[in-house]
Amino acid sequence: MSLFDKFQKNAVLYNALSEAGRNPFTVQMDEILGPTRAIVKGKEIVLAGTNNYLGLTFREEVVSAAQAAVAEQGAGTTGSRFANGTYASHKALERALAAFLGFSRCIVFSTGYQANLGAISALAAPGKDVIFIDADCHACIYDGCQLSGAETVRFRHNSPEDLDRRLSRLDGDEKYAGMGKLVCIEGMYSMFGDVAPAKEFLDVARRHGAYLFVDEAHSFGVYGESGRGVVEAQGVIDEIDFYSGTFSKSLVSIGGFVASNHPELDYLRFSARPYMFTASPSPANVAAATAALQCIAAEPDLRKRVWANARRVHEAFTQLGLETCAPPGPVIAVKLPDRETAFAAWSFLIDKGVYVNLAIPPGTPNAASILRLSVSAAHTNDDLDIVIDAYGAMAETFAQARVTA
Amino acid sequence: MSLFDKFQKNAVLYNALSEAGRNPFTVQMDEILGPTRAIVKGKEIVLAGTNNYLGLTFREEVVSAAQAAVAEQGAGTTGSRFANGTYASHKALERALAAFLGFSRCIVFSTGYQANLGAISALAAPGKDVIFIDADCHACIYDGCQLSGAETVRFRHNSPEDLDRRLSRLDGDEKYAGMGKLVCIEGMYSMFGDVAPAKEFLDVARRHGAYLFVDEAHSFGVYGESGRGVVEAQGVIDEIDFYSGTFSKSLVSIGGFVASNHPELDYLRFSARPYMFTASPSPANVAAATAALQCIAAEPDLRKRVWANARRVHEAFTQLGLETCAPPGPVIAVKLPDRETAFAAWSFLIDKGVYVNLAIPPGTPNAASILRLSVSAAHTNDDLDIVIDAYGAMAETFAQARVTA
Repeated sequence: MSLFDKFQKNAVLYNALSEAGRNPFTVQMDEILGPTRAIVKGKEIVLAGTNNYLGLTFREEVVSAAQAAVAEQGAGTTGSRFANGTYASHKALERALAAFLGFSRCIVFSTGYQANLGAISALAAPGKDVIFIDADCHACIYDGCQLSGAETVRFRHNSPEDLDRRLSRLDGDEKYAGMGKLVCIEGMYSMFGDVAPAKEFLDVARRHGAYLFVDEAHSFGVYGESGRGVVEAQGVIDEIDFYSGTFSKSLVSIGGFVASNHPELDYLRFSARPYMFTASPSPANVAAATAALQCIAAEPDLRKRVWANARRVHEAFTQLGLETCAPPGPVIAVKLPDRETAFAAWSFLIDKGVYVNLAIPPGTPNAASILRLSVSAAHTNDDLDIVIDAYGAMAETFAQARVTA
Repeated sequence: MSLFDKFQKNAVLYNALSEAGRNPFTVQMDEILGPTRAIVKGKEIVLAGTNNYLGLTFREEVVSAAQAAVAEQGAGTTGSRFANGTYASHKALERALAAFLGFSRCIVFSTGYQANLGAISALAAPGKDVIFIDADCHACIYDGCQLSGAETVRFRHNSPEDLDRRLSRLDGDEKYAGMGKLVCIEGMYSMFGDVAPAKEFLDVARRHGAYLFVDEAHSFGVYGESGRGVVEAQGVIDEIDFYSGTFSKSLVSIGGFVASNHPELDYLRFSARPYMFTASPSPANVAAATAALQCIAAEPDLRKRVWANARRVHEAFTQLGLETCAPPGPVIAVKLPDRETAFAAWSFLIDKGVYVNLAIPPGTPNAASILRLSVSAAHTNDDLDIVIDAYGAMAETFAQARVTA
């Protein structure tokens, strides 16, 4: 009879963590001091578990653009994009993103979650299309599949061979004759920081007449010669079908987008429910993303800094004997032997003044227990000294965290 | 093979409207002059199709709070609520909403769409619960049901009797023994502006051991002695199980919330995917909603004004012989005989300097073709004169729009 029975098992852990005063689900930033510093429980900490890769949250151009937009366009639009909520600023941002990425068109959504949810659920229909997703895809891609109602096939993470096998099976099956096929991958995966072989996936998709959808939420602004993501770095940005991204990482706002060279992308405006039936992004959010995009386009130095910081931290962790989950990149995940050690190490790092993300099973790839750290272009050498020292002390205290002596 | 075939039928209409230069899906506000005025295609129009019921989009307290928040907390949080995206301001807004509404707890989501999507999809599980929704519920409630995977039963709009019948059927069915039941209704429905008999629905739900979830997105701030919605007006706010709302109507921001007296509401924080896997609301959005809430709590005059405006417009439309869909309220929908007349009348009103919402089948209750107008506390007498004059001219030009001489 109770709707709440299903939560009881996890609730026990959740409540115990809360009572212990250290629940990773409810850590509160009491005050934000800048892109890399906050106050938590009265103590200053280094933020090393955000998605603020380029560190633009407090950039003067971004802040003043957001402030001006509130004064000029109001606090909110109080309407959906398909009613009164399409302002000149929404269209301008769509044009700016399309131009930056080199696509003919782009649609802005109210959150990154709703961008993937909306595009995937509209593009694929039950009985008409089949979706193929990388097993490690983000929750919002899974939710887009569920909302679409279309048959969804999961393939092994970062394995074009496995995708090829699964697509081949369908090719010979009468049941699937004439059906549309949509393949969804991400550029960089947010938990381990590993990167998709996008070129190989594109080849497989093309061979089977499938469309390729690439979510560059975490890689936009960071990967590629001009910050256009993993597909730029691998030279296939002009060939993929759909490019999705978010405003809540390097674009330091909230919202999302899907870009494409298919003129039919525009049809999502009358078919994607999470686009139509939600208020459009607030003027402040649109202005912040627009200003951040200008910074990203104008300042390649931002990328240089985040990469230099990534290499420094990755090298230090390797020297400490810690097991990282991927080559150097803006996300540096350290694998720990089990949940309990991961939780204790996460808590230890907070005591040492460093905030990172705890990720434990279920919900992590390969049921790994990890500490997910992210570097920012805004991290100073001081910030990174504190981070590396804290990890050093952690590696001392939790000897089992080390894979090498 | 093409993902786009399914769009072709609607695309023909969409493209024709675009080529005619008057596509209701893509009207662009070139400039926003204030809560009730905008420039569209070089011409000033009265905005009478927004959800800005209390007209607070440009209120000084709201604008300055949003601006200060950007400077102090940054443009975005670059993190989800369950990672680094819970700021003191998010928690303060949750407390303020709970206190205003008289619930023990409240959870803030990044959009109103995600509030309903997240709460419903987490509260109901396939094989464990059954959801009952009013047939006229908003798309995000339907999408929440779809995302949950739980069996969903639709009952006749605003009919507690039909809900009772459908719940009774389950009571006698072994298959549903011990399953949870969640009933979803709205306070005021946004298309017609009609109001739910919440008290009667509560009685039915209680009799069958079901939980009652009420979405007050459009009625929050407007209905009830203190603006707490239809459930306050009907004296049952203390008895319902879940109260959901949005920031993108009277709270003039973007975001949403669910409030409850059930301590277990907090478990949504580790189970509602649209809460966990999305960036938290930006500081500007949180600050704007917080400031607007303070205005709503402090100024009952806002409600008086919107109601006086609603009565004036409703009475004028009745005198013009137009068929309204509900008694006076902030949403005043006028029914037209068919799609073509509705589109022509909508276009006519824009030419007369009035923006309202065109809503045509499919997607409207009872397959009605309507012009949805909304009044705002910020509408001046001049604004309403223009609106009423334009509707008068429309009723002259489209004689078939009138039901009485």
